[in-house]
Amino acid sequence: MGKLVECVPNISEGRRKDIIDAIVGQVKAFDVRLLDVESDVDHNRSVITYVGEPEEVRKATMSLAAKAVELIDMEKHKGEHPRMGAIDVVPFIPISEMDMTECIELANRVGKDIAETLKVPVYLYEDAATRPERQDLAQVRKGQYEGLKTEIAKPERRPDYGEARMHPTAGAVAVGARQPLVAFNVNLGTRNLEVAKAIAKAVRNSSGGLRFVKAMGFDIKDKGHVQVSMNLVNYKGTPVFRAYEMVKSEAERYGVPIIGTEVIGLIPMDALVDCAEHYLRITGFKRDQILENRLWSTSNKS
Amino acid sequence: MGKLVECVPNISEGRRKDIIDAIVGQVKAFDVRLLDVESDVDHNRSVITYVGEPEEVRKATMSLAAKAVELIDMEKHKGEHPRMGAIDVVPFIPISEMDMTECIELANRVGKDIAETLKVPVYLYEDAATRPERQDLAQVRKGQYEGLKTEIAKPERRPDYGEARMHPTAGAVAVGARQPLVAFNVNLGTRNLEVAKAIAKAVRNSSGGLRFVKAMGFDIKDKGHVQVSMNLVNYKGTPVFRAYEMVKSEAERYGVPIIGTEVIGLIPMDALVDCAEHYLRITGFKRDQILENRLWSTSNKS
Repeated sequence: MGKLVECVPNISEGRRKDIIDAIVGQVKAFDVRLLDVESDVDHNRSVITYVGEPEEVRKATMSLAAKAVELIDMEKHKGEHPRMGAIDVVPFIPISEMDMTECIELANRVGKDIAETLKVPVYLYEDAATRPERQDLAQVRKGQYEGLKTEIAKPERRPDYGEARMHPTAGAVAVGARQPLVAFNVNLGTRNLEVAKAIAKAVRNSSGGLRFVKAMGFDIKDKGHVQVSMNLVNYKGTPVFRAYEMVKSEAERYGVPIIGTEVIGLIPMDALVDCAEHYLRITGFKRDQILENRLWSTSNKS
Repeated sequence: MGKLVECVPNISEGRRKDIIDAIVGQVKAFDVRLLDVESDVDHNRSVITYVGEPEEVRKATMSLAAKAVELIDMEKHKGEHPRMGAIDVVPFIPISEMDMTECIELANRVGKDIAETLKVPVYLYEDAATRPERQDLAQVRKGQYEGLKTEIAKPERRPDYGEARMHPTAGAVAVGARQPLVAFNVNLGTRNLEVAKAIAKAVRNSSGGLRFVKAMGFDIKDKGHVQVSMNLVNYKGTPVFRAYEMVKSEAERYGVPIIGTEVIGLIPMDALVDCAEHYLRITGFKRDQILENRLWSTSNKS
């Protein structure tokens, strides 16, 4: 497959199709593959996903950021989702033959360029964070666009690149590096929301559970059951099967069956193969034994 | 990924590198990806694996077959593996966006062309077989090169394409269509070979077990354990997890633990993803939710 990185910019426009199209259109000039564009009217926000070689992704991202800064005016932006800038967040995610260090370098390069050329202050977040509290995007974005106008002057809110003042219309941007996120829901054979909440609490990191799991309990009223909804923020650190088995074990304690699970959106092949390896107890397996990996490798074209 | 078919010709030469190279070299003129060449000196046989779009694979295979017929003289061939021709077997295997019907059509086209242009009689086998007994390659090859010289004249041994006489130096060829084969071994925490043999007998189709499983019990002396060695000849019909669970259940009956398993050679991604889906109880999963499948699809290049 060669070296591949994913970039998932979130822009603060989810309503005006012409503006969204103009911004997304920027990446089409580069050799990247556009996987998804999802716009939310209530959030007034769009999430754009593309993948390619690092240099192409870098150039596509700079071009997209420039257009977002040009076309989006944060002074007029309203939406339910927390945000602090026109191009709000820019995470880089390792997909193939990339390690996190390379994604952090890429985040720094892009962050520096955005600050210098677009005059938008940049905060590095998650694995690219320069301070522990900035690993958490919510902390970086605290106060949002409006609040940051004054907060940014404080030493603890000083951006990593650029001057300590907001861009007059584009605000600030968080640029980071992180593992692919896996959204994985477990449906329980009960209507008792308390059970789902108790299990979510047991498995999530914030209340003593697994390191890379975020979890909430939900009532899925129209289906007549409850759900443990998880975000696995690093499937290498906390594999899907481990999160699943922990939910299963906790559910057993309440005598509640698992009636099914759901993967929401995209999942890396490796996350699923790790599960097959675990349950089938496969030893010594190499990923190039997967036929498709041979086909898609760039090295052995005959 | 587009329409992709795999072809795995077995040729009756495993010793003379120049001959093998000349034959394998034929496929390099076509747009196919050479995945593997494995030569066995004792068997005096080489197994060549390549993948590509059906038309390119067809042309590459014809070219390879012509060279094998030109360079290999079966009158001088000796080797431990059963064989009946210079190009001994030619299976076509569906990989992506191909169904078995298309592979059977391809086998017929190539079989007809080999008979007409190379004057080598062709037997269709496995899913391409025209008679039930020819689904089994061992039945097709019965008597081998030497025996078939006279047997071929019998009505029940009449080839599907070409005249009922062996090519004077290249013999006959079996051309077929089949599912990808998954070689999967389960290691048991015992030295008792009888246990491995009993479990193999229980799980294999031939003695009453699972439809698409072939299995044998082996003593892995240097490791100090025994093994149930399986060939899963159709992982869609009998998934890996079902074969594994049956071995596990039978092993429990003898109080023997599974100490690990091994995948030998290549395995299609789908075979592993099926296992993840099963054990994680995932419902409603679509294969295009796998990130790599999006990347490798030919339709959504931005």
